[in-house]
Amino acid sequence: MGTIGTILLSEIAGTAMLTLLGGGVVANAILKGTKGKDGGWLLINFGWGLAVFTGVYVAYQTGAHLNPAVTLGLAASGGDLFGGNEALGLAAIPTTAGNVVVYLIAELIGAFLGAIVCWLAYKKHYDAEEDPGTILGTFSTGPEIRSYGWNFVTEAIATFVLVFVIIQFGATPSGLGPLAVALLVLAIGASLGGPTGYAINPARDLGPRIAHAILPIQHKGSSDWGYSWVPIAGPIVGGVLAGVASMAFF
Amino acid sequence: MGTIGTILLSEIAGTAMLTLLGGGVVANAILKGTKGKDGGWLLINFGWGLAVFTGVYVAYQTGAHLNPAVTLGLAASGGDLFGGNEALGLAAIPTTAGNVVVYLIAELIGAFLGAIVCWLAYKKHYDAEEDPGTILGTFSTGPEIRSYGWNFVTEAIATFVLVFVIIQFGATPSGLGPLAVALLVLAIGASLGGPTGYAINPARDLGPRIAHAILPIQHKGSSDWGYSWVPIAGPIVGGVLAGVASMAFF
Amino acid sequence: MGTIGTILLSEIAGTAMLTLLGGGVVANAILKGTKGKDGGWLLINFGWGLAVFTGVYVAYQTGAHLNPAVTLGLAASGGDLFGGNEALGLAAIPTTAGNVVVYLIAELIGAFLGAIVCWLAYKKHYDAEEDPGTILGTFSTGPEIRSYGWNFVTEAIATFVLVFVIIQFGATPSGLGPLAVALLVLAIGASLGGPTGYAINPARDLGPRIAHAILPIQHKGSSDWGYSWVPIAGPIVGGVLAGVASMAFF
Amino acid sequence: MGTIGTILLSEIAGTAMLTLLGGGVVANAILKGTKGKDGGWLLINFGWGLAVFTGVYVAYQTGAHLNPAVTLGLAASGGDLFGGNEALGLAAIPTTAGNVVVYLIAELIGAFLGAIVCWLAYKKHYDAEEDPGTILGTFSTGPEIRSYGWNFVTEAIATFVLVFVIIQFGATPSGLGPLAVALLVLAIGASLGGPTGYAINPARDLGPRIAHAILPIQHKGSSDWGYSWVPIAGPIVGGVLAGVASMAFF
Repeated sequence: MGTIGTILLSEIAGTAMLTLLGGGVVANAILKGTKGKDGGWLLINFGWGLAVFTGVYVAYQTGAHLNPAVTLGLAASGGDLFGGNEALGLAAIPTTAGNVVVYLIAELIGAFLGAIVCWLAYKKHYDAEEDPGTILGTFSTGPEIRSYGWNFVTEAIATFVLVFVIIQFGATPSGLGPLAVALLVLAIGASLGGPTGYAINPARDLGPRIAHAILPIQHKGSSDWGYSWVPIAGPIVGGVLAGVASMAFF
Repeated sequence: MGTIGTILLSEIAGTAMLTLLGGGVVANAILKGTKGKDGGWLLINFGWGLAVFTGVYVAYQTGAHLNPAVTLGLAASGGDLFGGNEALGLAAIPTTAGNVVVYLIAELIGAFLGAIVCWLAYKKHYDAEEDPGTILGTFSTGPEIRSYGWNFVTEAIATFVLVFVIIQFGATPSGLGPLAVALLVLAIGASLGGPTGYAINPARDLGPRIAHAILPIQHKGSSDWGYSWVPIAGPIVGGVLAGVASMAFF
Repeated sequence: MGTIGTILLSEIAGTAMLTLLGGGVVANAILKGTKGKDGGWLLINFGWGLAVFTGVYVAYQTGAHLNPAVTLGLAASGGDLFGGNEALGLAAIPTTAGNVVVYLIAELIGAFLGAIVCWLAYKKHYDAEEDPGTILGTFSTGPEIRSYGWNFVTEAIATFVLVFVIIQFGATPSGLGPLAVALLVLAIGASLGGPTGYAINPARDLGPRIAHAILPIQHKGSSDWGYSWVPIAGPIVGGVLAGVASMAFF
Repeated sequence: MGTIGTILLSEIAGTAMLTLLGGGVVANAILKGTKGKDGGWLLINFGWGLAVFTGVYVAYQTGAHLNPAVTLGLAASGGDLFGGNEALGLAAIPTTAGNVVVYLIAELIGAFLGAIVCWLAYKKHYDAEEDPGTILGTFSTGPEIRSYGWNFVTEAIATFVLVFVIIQFGATPSGLGPLAVALLVLAIGASLGGPTGYAINPARDLGPRIAHAILPIQHKGSSDWGYSWVPIAGPIVGGVLAGVASMAFF
């Protein structure tokens, strides 16, 4: 398989795993009649952190971006999109416009597909749930206090942290591997997820939002397209700033 | 000891540890009068995740399947049942019909025995508990919304994730060892356990269900045999699909 | 310093750290007016698990038993009390009657001292607390349903798991180090701590109980000496059985 | 860049990350209208533990003190402020009065800046919050039962544990890296944070307190300068004692 095929397969599968498990923990915590109902914010933080953990293993062949903000941040940092791994026989993936686009497409497709599978896993609970806001909340993020400007700021700050520290991980190898990223995402969720629900990933928000718009769910309401640009633009700005800042920092 | 004896001893002990600690955390979270009463879903997720962690150490000599879905998924993936470990002086265990059967038998026996020991550890709380559903819930899984078809789908999806990612662990060695599997199980419980309680393991469900049927517990009710095929068939289908998908993916 | 001095210093310091942090998390979760008040069972499990984690680092020079059940279980398993560590320049400590006794004495002294420091850290909250049972609960364990026989069984089972798996850790080195023991203790607490509060360590229970008897706390009541033999005898029996079983298992 | 510039850049960035994520989790757990509202003590413990985890990666070039109690404790222990890292090409930083002062200044500046960014991330929730005590609680620590002497004791004990065990980490290298420090901070928070909220770091408390005094927040009240010396003096005394004790212990 060529590089493009590898990126597509790997990042689609990994990002689908991400939104399957990430959407799943929210479904478990808020949909009607689940075993994890009202399980609390830390449960959601663990679920999303470990969704990243799992997705990283699935997409290890291409560095497991799973996130356009990571892809664009790495591109902005001046390095490769993936450094490769000699021990595993994996080739590096250089930063080219073409490769960046393939990553972005794969991430969006994967995020969309994962949301579909999550809906299948929780099918009877989607049928039972009657609150449109709760249903949308298992697909996409939304702010607690709506303020496009400040919501953008929150998402940009949180994604800056994500991408800046991921780049640091590359500079300071430890034995933790994917666990380090999982803990970072858990940290961001616990600490900076309060206002907007930490999309910190345009694909993770847009892919499932499209799924929400398409899927036949009885009591679903609006897909809230008015807000949808915030969890796209905020993470992209935060991620690119982190990539640029990393160049200056090292 | 020959291979068969090693598999039996190792997988019986490991799977018994799994259902002792896994059943234990549910008993602690829901039985009458325990210190962990109403401890919440994340407590249960941690308990099961670390039950796997502990069981993996106990059964390390045979790769610690602890789960027929893992055994059958590995067989379907075309590799060995256990790759062996030169540093620890452990021989590989090839995929043969005989070895598969021995694994399955050991897993079921172990899961049964662990549930017995769990009952002993919580004996006075089983005596005090008067709700049959609560008692059964400490042995076997049951759905929140009964729908055999969709419950099957949920179990198949969750087990696909389990076996697919376990096979990925083999391809991407990290320093995490058994912790990686524990975190994966924690992830699946948090994210996909909401509808059916994530059996994701036919032995883990059937063994304790048999124990429930046999043990002299005053207020126990039905062992719910009508549902019992779902946490057997769903995980087997999901696990085998994961094994097949892994062959295509790599 | 000779071996006896090293054991004393190391195990006293490590076990004091254990009961300082272990007693502390219970104090935080149940004493009047603390920030962690009603923080739940998982908080307590994390606190005790990480108390072991921290104590293990403090007592690394002597293998960090911190627990008579571990000392006696290792002696029963037929190996050294501490295998030594060439990389850190630490000598092995052979199993002799004299060394065993020094370990046991150090563990008891350490557990006593840690409880004193914990009381100092929470001094104003001990002054404010008016319920004797709550006060005793921050020092020693007690059963939810009093039944000396079954409480003994629970403690023996839980300690069997602890010591058996700790011995397995020695046979299957991973990169987790002290984290593995912390997760094991977290697992035992979550899964088997429901009936008796998982002493699983005679020193951890007796040392603080003596401190409770001595310290000038206004509203303290009985130190419940009638129960005190259970968290001593149960863990010792469980630990020794685990040591013997390990010999047979390998 | 010279040593002074490296210390400044590294420790400012790392300590800013610390108080951004540390302040953030408290904001999320207590400010009006957040998603993590009333998320509980364990959520806060995880947030702070992982704030340290993240800050350590950011400041790895200078050993990631992030805390004057660590800087002064290391100085008191007689070793270097940073041992260097050959594999990463990082030079050691010797203990000189000048270097100590630069560390302290950087830590204070960083802690101040992180609190500002945290305020930006939660801007709309600060606007909505009407309780002055809640607002101050997201910046600085305060005692549950005010008693300067005993509050000092609690902070000194907790910081002793922090610095003493961090020095042990240096003597017993494991594969856990920054995760070990994160778990230690989680342990201290769970176990010893109940009375005073575990500042255990003068910069972490003073920097955000200055930010609180300066920032234009509508319903903010007093910055409680009367208490402010406790989370400075207690941690310094505890940290220096830990450094001295470490010399004796090894």
